[in-house]
Amino acid sequence: MIVKQWTELAKFSSEKMAKVTIAQGEILFAGLNCFEPGQEHAAHAHAGQDKLYIVLEGDAEIQVGDEKQLVSAGGGAFAGAGVLHSVRKRGEQRLVVLTVLAPPPRP
Amino acid sequence: MIVKQWTELAKFSSEKMAKVTIAQGEILFAGLNCFEPGQEHAAHAHAGQDKLYIVLEGDAEIQVGDEKQLVSAGGGAFAGAGVLHSVRKRGEQRLVVLTVLAPPPRP
Repeated sequence: MIVKQWTELAKFSSEKMAKVTIAQGEILFAGLNCFEPGQEHAAHAHAGQDKLYIVLEGDAEIQVGDEKQLVSAGGGAFAGAGVLHSVRKRGEQRLVVLTVLAPPPRP
Repeated sequence: MIVKQWTELAKFSSEKMAKVTIAQGEILFAGLNCFEPGQEHAAHAHAGQDKLYIVLEGDAEIQVGDEKQLVSAGGGAFAGAGVLHSVRKRGEQRLVVLTVLAPPPRP
């Protein structure tokens, strides 16, 4: 699968952060987390699951363990298995974060 | 680990495409593939290993299976385990592609 612009696959919900699956492999899962202003993905950790964030559009306040930073398009973060992490929308623009998980989340 | 701009970690070599490791998890590996004009990552496949490409800078001709497309920053591709894929630098600008592999490559 080849995609010209990942953000063209984004979908938003006024209720809460929206998730879009973009690749479902055997070992790797990728999706978009799409935030309207004020929305967030509360702090959580995954036992035995690594996660990589790539910010595609907008500004995010990302927390990984004890570290917290404002990250714009082109940046991101890595949270190894078991490490607490969260993403919070900052500013007025919509936020789209490409998220890669391995192994894939269980249905 | 939080990174403001992934491309600031890029390194280039005049000899061949350069690789930079950016995250080494238990199940997920992420790195940058950095191309000078004329360089390419020849077609190959990984048995039992999924791969996601995110183009961060420059223009790439990406092939996955029978599909081939020119992809610029913000786009990318997914090659499931065993699917043939390649990346070729197009244009005069340097090319930086964020590459995610699961499981990690063996040393």
